[in-house]
Amino acid sequence: MFEQLGVIGCGLIGGSFALAMRQRGLVRRVVGCAKSASSADRARQLGVIDLALASPAQVMAGSDIVLLAVPVSATAATLQAVRDALGPGVLLMDAGSTKRDVVDAARRVLRERVGSFVPAHPIAGKESSGVEHADAALFDRRQVILTPLPQTRPDLVERATRVWTAIGAQVSTMAPEQHDAAFAAVSHLPHVLAFAYFNAILGQPGSREMLALAGPGFRDFTRIAASDPTIWRDILGANREEVLKQSQRFRQALEAFETAMKTDNGDALEALIRGAAQGRSRWHIQGHGGSGTRG
Amino acid sequence: MFEQLGVIGCGLIGGSFALAMRQRGLVRRVVGCAKSASSADRARQLGVIDLALASPAQVMAGSDIVLLAVPVSATAATLQAVRDALGPGVLLMDAGSTKRDVVDAARRVLRERVGSFVPAHPIAGKESSGVEHADAALFDRRQVILTPLPQTRPDLVERATRVWTAIGAQVSTMAPEQHDAAFAAVSHLPHVLAFAYFNAILGQPGSREMLALAGPGFRDFTRIAASDPTIWRDILGANREEVLKQSQRFRQALEAFETAMKTDNGDALEALIRGAAQGRSRWHIQGHGGSGTRG
Repeated sequence: MFEQLGVIGCGLIGGSFALAMRQRGLVRRVVGCAKSASSADRARQLGVIDLALASPAQVMAGSDIVLLAVPVSATAATLQAVRDALGPGVLLMDAGSTKRDVVDAARRVLRERVGSFVPAHPIAGKESSGVEHADAALFDRRQVILTPLPQTRPDLVERATRVWTAIGAQVSTMAPEQHDAAFAAVSHLPHVLAFAYFNAILGQPGSREMLALAGPGFRDFTRIAASDPTIWRDILGANREEVLKQSQRFRQALEAFETAMKTDNGDALEALIRGAAQGRSRWHIQGHGGSGTRG
Repeated sequence: MFEQLGVIGCGLIGGSFALAMRQRGLVRRVVGCAKSASSADRARQLGVIDLALASPAQVMAGSDIVLLAVPVSATAATLQAVRDALGPGVLLMDAGSTKRDVVDAARRVLRERVGSFVPAHPIAGKESSGVEHADAALFDRRQVILTPLPQTRPDLVERATRVWTAIGAQVSTMAPEQHDAAFAAVSHLPHVLAFAYFNAILGQPGSREMLALAGPGFRDFTRIAASDPTIWRDILGANREEVLKQSQRFRQALEAFETAMKTDNGDALEALIRGAAQGRSRWHIQGHGGSGTRG
């Protein structure tokens, strides 16, 4: 049980975390701030937070658990704004989708206080952003990756693990570099492909008529293309080296299909498809509810 | 009301069509055949068809409506097998995902009897194939495209329209070339991209650990990668010219993302993402249930 949760950034993630903590009775009071005062007010009106404050420093006062739920590009400035108010007993977490840049910023900005910071990445989201879409069940049966630094206090990693577990998530830890490489592959590149594919459709004659014919396969394949532009600009910018590596691998895989089609090689084409189809059929989403075997 | 529906190819599509026709009371009797006798038997055991027959010619006897639901590559041979038994009052349809090749084969094989053939493409499916997954509601609120030839009998196009409409679909007609170009864009290329992406993941070190981290975005983006390999080999083979054109367009759109990342141009990256995100947010699947305005 925490006394006061501070949420810096009252959007989908911050709002959902607040609602989840409240619903499980893990916190007495929730305070928050946002880039615009109106966003924090809306969060208060919706009952997501109890008190809308004006600044990250105000949110820190009296909070024993704080979640930074701001775009990745705002992390360094936000850490700077909370640093002086960061007491030794406080659990400070972020929720960013990239971790190398966050860990670097935390080391640089928080310095000797970096031990209180537990970098976290909840693998959850929706295309719709904003506190209006906050959902107490957003992290339920989702994975949360913690990427602690060597200096991070082990007791705070343990507390962070208990908090996320209590709101339904499955927690694992890894190094920030490993995290960013893996998420470039399984999350960031698919977003790039979905964005690029949608742009390719929009950019051609007759696109309206084509889009009117698209069915359920298209709907699911392009769902992530509706993701928030500023959030994804930041993610792709922060992790661009790994994403570019993955894009290169993808291009080679695409080339194999193009070659098989150009040479009308049905056997090669079928073998390529079969490899993907078997791999995808074997894959299942991980989490408490899945057939997962992660420790 | 039809006397007898003949289904040639008792898989997901043939089986679902039979179940839908039966459920709406549109047909007295359903007969069918399949490449293997055991498939047709299974369809009979499951109550999808009343009688399992040995050949397409046997299915034709007494049928006033016939659906060819075989892989695209088997269409020409199947048309050959039914030709001599094709009476003038019979409505013969296929259900293939490509139409130029089907129309060519029909013209070549059926010759003076081609007027009875109404080429059809129901935009519906599942990753799971086979009659076990047949579903009377598969075509409900889905689009069906008819691509009649100049020789196709107008009364049969009208009957085909009524049948598909009666089982819940929304019917439109277009030229086969236009159909194949549009579906290369909104269906065939996304399949290629999903297959290639999955192969790129599988082909790299640490893919197992990466796949264990993948979340809901990955799940939806790759759903179509689990599609049937022989069916998709045929579709991509039959429509390879249009698919290759679309792949070229896609590569250019991907390159724009790569350039923005390489040059660390956040504004360009955001503009690219915003274009896609706005386009995707505006798009809605068409059909009776959607906000569709197609005539």
